[in-house]
Amino acid sequence: MRYNLAFIGFGSVGRALARLLLDRSHELQSERDITWRLTGVATRRLGWRVATEGFDVEALLESDRAALAAPAETDIASWLTATKAGVLFEMSSLNAHTGQPAIAHIEAALEHGAHAVTANKGPIVHGYRHLRDLAAARGKGFRFESAVMDGAPIFSLFRECLPLAHVTGFEGILNSTTNFLLEAMESGSGLEDAVRKAQAMGLAETDPAADVDGFDAAVKVAAIVSVIMDVPIGLQDVARRGIREIDATEVRAARAAGTPYKLMCRAVRAGDGVVATVAPERVAADSPFALVGGTSSVVHFHTDILPGLTITEHTPTPTTTAYGILADFIGLVSGSGRGI
Amino acid sequence: MRYNLAFIGFGSVGRALARLLLDRSHELQSERDITWRLTGVATRRLGWRVATEGFDVEALLESDRAALAAPAETDIASWLTATKAGVLFEMSSLNAHTGQPAIAHIEAALEHGAHAVTANKGPIVHGYRHLRDLAAARGKGFRFESAVMDGAPIFSLFRECLPLAHVTGFEGILNSTTNFLLEAMESGSGLEDAVRKAQAMGLAETDPAADVDGFDAAVKVAAIVSVIMDVPIGLQDVARRGIREIDATEVRAARAAGTPYKLMCRAVRAGDGVVATVAPERVAADSPFALVGGTSSVVHFHTDILPGLTITEHTPTPTTTAYGILADFIGLVSGSGRGI
Repeated sequence: MRYNLAFIGFGSVGRALARLLLDRSHELQSERDITWRLTGVATRRLGWRVATEGFDVEALLESDRAALAAPAETDIASWLTATKAGVLFEMSSLNAHTGQPAIAHIEAALEHGAHAVTANKGPIVHGYRHLRDLAAARGKGFRFESAVMDGAPIFSLFRECLPLAHVTGFEGILNSTTNFLLEAMESGSGLEDAVRKAQAMGLAETDPAADVDGFDAAVKVAAIVSVIMDVPIGLQDVARRGIREIDATEVRAARAAGTPYKLMCRAVRAGDGVVATVAPERVAADSPFALVGGTSSVVHFHTDILPGLTITEHTPTPTTTAYGILADFIGLVSGSGRGI
Repeated sequence: MRYNLAFIGFGSVGRALARLLLDRSHELQSERDITWRLTGVATRRLGWRVATEGFDVEALLESDRAALAAPAETDIASWLTATKAGVLFEMSSLNAHTGQPAIAHIEAALEHGAHAVTANKGPIVHGYRHLRDLAAARGKGFRFESAVMDGAPIFSLFRECLPLAHVTGFEGILNSTTNFLLEAMESGSGLEDAVRKAQAMGLAETDPAADVDGFDAAVKVAAIVSVIMDVPIGLQDVARRGIREIDATEVRAARAAGTPYKLMCRAVRAGDGVVATVAPERVAADSPFALVGGTSSVVHFHTDILPGLTITEHTPTPTTTAYGILADFIGLVSGSGRGI
């Protein structure tokens, strides 16, 4: 079956997704009976561009001019109509504190009658139940595998592979940038110097608070708790301390003592609720967390049925994130699972 | 929908599955619309027992007499007919070198028109393609999640969550008994003494060669390669060295040097084939394998799309294995995924 695809956002993840769709188009057709064309691309700079017969994606990856030559709509609703989008890929820049404008984009897509896939965690924390219920009411899907741990399957794992398993708690390292920052501090940098290095490498956010003050980690904790533990919590419900609270001397001393600091995320069910925290912790050298460094991340789940299951993702790239989005798309249109 | 279930094998895993089905029957009904009755139980000692209206499973767990009171058939075909089984759970004792009698049981179930779920790895190594194709021809499912790493999702992970991802290789610790044996040797035991301890704890097979000579690990490697890498290899295609080849002095010295021995499983794609090995190796203290001990196991996958994904399962029990079987059953009858 053929799908009209629409992208909001065409940065590193959007471009990696376009490349992946091109590279895997033969397989998509032969193994999944999926063909596609990209009928809409929207970014802040390009506006709402439409190509009813499909953009030349190679040309688009080459240069934005290919998009600028296409007609533009003035708002998302008319753009979705003009693109006849079957699936919206929401990859806009996010305000993690409000979930906007991603939530409005996803609402518009579902109202229009398209599936919505996002790489943004904000919509989960600020709008999960609303968007899930809206998708169900419209008979469409809403997926977000890449919002946490890039392309590693976390949400789909519980949805598809672990029926009836109830998560009683989890712990992990969900913000990998702090691995890099702590390692730089262990090697002699101060925090600010480490942040500059991370920014130069494209690892850290422009606003370092997302990493350094634990906001990114806390949003991911809230997302996992809201979806997998089915307890709706917000960012304010996660007790949050960032690595800004420890200085480089402490960081070096902890490493020298064999119990390095990590920005640990934790959640545990307590009655009807969940106690959720983000904080720098010294971890034992023989914990599964001590070895997770660089851009890698890890989460260890406790469930009422599997004593313990750990998922570790190693050195992701924008293609890894794009793959999570592609997997969501394939899952949605293959009709696997029960929807979410 | 209601399913007639038939068990071959009623040892620790079969009993754990029966307990799990009882404990989760309310959830199965409310969340999945699945109700069930156990219409057949077969073991070497009981023969082919039938209860067309369903056994009293609590009574069965209490005492075998509940089964002995039921009528018995003389062979699997008439037993399947009498039980009107919709799903066969194959949990018999296995000859891993031939895959029998499990393969014959699964064939009979599929021919009868039932789904087949097994906890045995032999049928995968000795009959995967044949059984997969037979299941497809009969419009039934054949699943085996528990065959490797108990209830941890490995096969379903790739089937349901990682579309289009091709595994280029993997490494891991798939036989956890050797963790225990090596740890006992590190603590001063000789190999034979360690094996006796493991047997006393119910960890080791009666025939220690399965663990000590690497047969169990090699069968699991062959199963993952055959299914997930889609390269049909047999036990003889896995270059196999067991921990029998190293003595306790070496094991202790390696641990003292911070690079302990583990029975490592490895496979890597090479042209159209796969190079697969099982061997004791000294692993670096900062490898993800050094920390996996006791009854835990781990596998690290390399794919053409995710740089690295590690799954670690901690301290499984017979209930963990039974859960893998239950998850297969739920997946099959929920019609999720594309079948296998």
